[in-house]
Amino acid sequence: MNKISVVGIGPGGLDEMTPKARKAIESAQVVAGYNTYIELIAPLLGGKKIIGRAMMQEIERSRLAVEEAQAGRDVAVVSSGDAGVYGMAGLVVDMVLDLPEENRPQLEIIAGVSAVNAAAAILGAPLMHDFAIISLSDLMTPWALIEKRVRSAAEGDFVIALYNPKSKRRVTQLSEVQKILLKFREKNTPVGIVTNAGRNGESKIISTLENFISEEVNMFSLVIIGNSQTYVKAGCMITPRGYERSRQLCD
Amino acid sequence: MNKISVVGIGPGGLDEMTPKARKAIESAQVVAGYNTYIELIAPLLGGKKIIGRAMMQEIERSRLAVEEAQAGRDVAVVSSGDAGVYGMAGLVVDMVLDLPEENRPQLEIIAGVSAVNAAAAILGAPLMHDFAIISLSDLMTPWALIEKRVRSAAEGDFVIALYNPKSKRRVTQLSEVQKILLKFREKNTPVGIVTNAGRNGESKIISTLENFISEEVNMFSLVIIGNSQTYVKAGCMITPRGYERSRQLCD
Repeated sequence: MNKISVVGIGPGGLDEMTPKARKAIESAQVVAGYNTYIELIAPLLGGKKIIGRAMMQEIERSRLAVEEAQAGRDVAVVSSGDAGVYGMAGLVVDMVLDLPEENRPQLEIIAGVSAVNAAAAILGAPLMHDFAIISLSDLMTPWALIEKRVRSAAEGDFVIALYNPKSKRRVTQLSEVQKILLKFREKNTPVGIVTNAGRNGESKIISTLENFISEEVNMFSLVIIGNSQTYVKAGCMITPRGYERSRQLCD
Repeated sequence: MNKISVVGIGPGGLDEMTPKARKAIESAQVVAGYNTYIELIAPLLGGKKIIGRAMMQEIERSRLAVEEAQAGRDVAVVSSGDAGVYGMAGLVVDMVLDLPEENRPQLEIIAGVSAVNAAAAILGAPLMHDFAIISLSDLMTPWALIEKRVRSAAEGDFVIALYNPKSKRRVTQLSEVQKILLKFREKNTPVGIVTNAGRNGESKIISTLENFISEEVNMFSLVIIGNSQTYVKAGCMITPRGYERSRQLCD
């Protein structure tokens, strides 16, 4: 029985991809994925058919991949980071499970190191307590709901990680998010920005809630906003495991 | 200059540990970690000094590890999953950065596949929209705050992942969490429970908000509660990427 895998390749290089993920890609005859991620795994792709690399609707990429699997080929659909976090997993699972059981390829989702964990490792240890992951992409989610998510996360004193913080089209949302957060959190709350985590051009900035808006943020950035206890020490962002200590700002 | 690394080993087997994590462990002379995780990476530990494996305060384990690093040895401190998510990263970073700069070993945090991503991959694609991670461990966090976190996450219609859902000492909290969630979410909201993700004895249950309390949950389980759009199809739990479709319950 042939197989379709949805694979999280991790944040960047082959050295942050699990052996399980690597084996799924190596054993596939067809690999589908957006160009940027295909490039990151190029050494593994010799002799394989590559599909879906152009900027396209993810629905179309899933459809092409599932078609290849229905034609009897082993397919790997790749996403950056973890495929189940704003990646390809949902669409592919849904499409495959819509097929009649007798026509259905074996399906496997292979977890990867998600962007938030890669960014956190570069910043120090900002995620050591409860955290909320929010995407600022409003393509399929009303902005009013995204605002509600930010507000709820702020009210719950979660560390907040923002995926897709900016794009060419969306440039003002980050400052609207800042306005909401300033109602709940002090203006010197640490904010970490990691761009191109695990790739060439990786950069790290530690700023504050008041100032981070003026820092460089783009579509390859991940923004982590501390909770009420998060502090900075010697250039690292740390959130305590509990509520034993008051927040310190060093460095 | 010698080095101390804090390494996320992933959910279980060596095939879900990144090459970067593996290299850090292999190149260390001393490896520190709780016994269960030391056992998972045993093949890599020949000839190394192993410390901190007994059930002990994490502070003591960090202290032992930092002492070894100060004595000039390369040390790897290991955590299951990702070390920055309820793992060893916060304590080690804090302790190392407290050392005077001239006495400070090189410090590196190496991201791993976190338990929530491993569990989600087993359930299907439950994390495809914004999600909140909450630990039910009240050792260092007042239960009132944990309840507030759950309530905020529910109000924001986040998918909710519960780490440390139960322990020998804590058995009633899961049902208190259920009560809170039932105020915000329908009783047939899908709930996934994955136990021993990536290890021997891995199990997966898909239940509902109304019923999941009667299922087997222990300290090695991760519970994922769907948002208002999450549905089950052919035994998989899927959260849509946006709000285009109404929730369907199949299977």
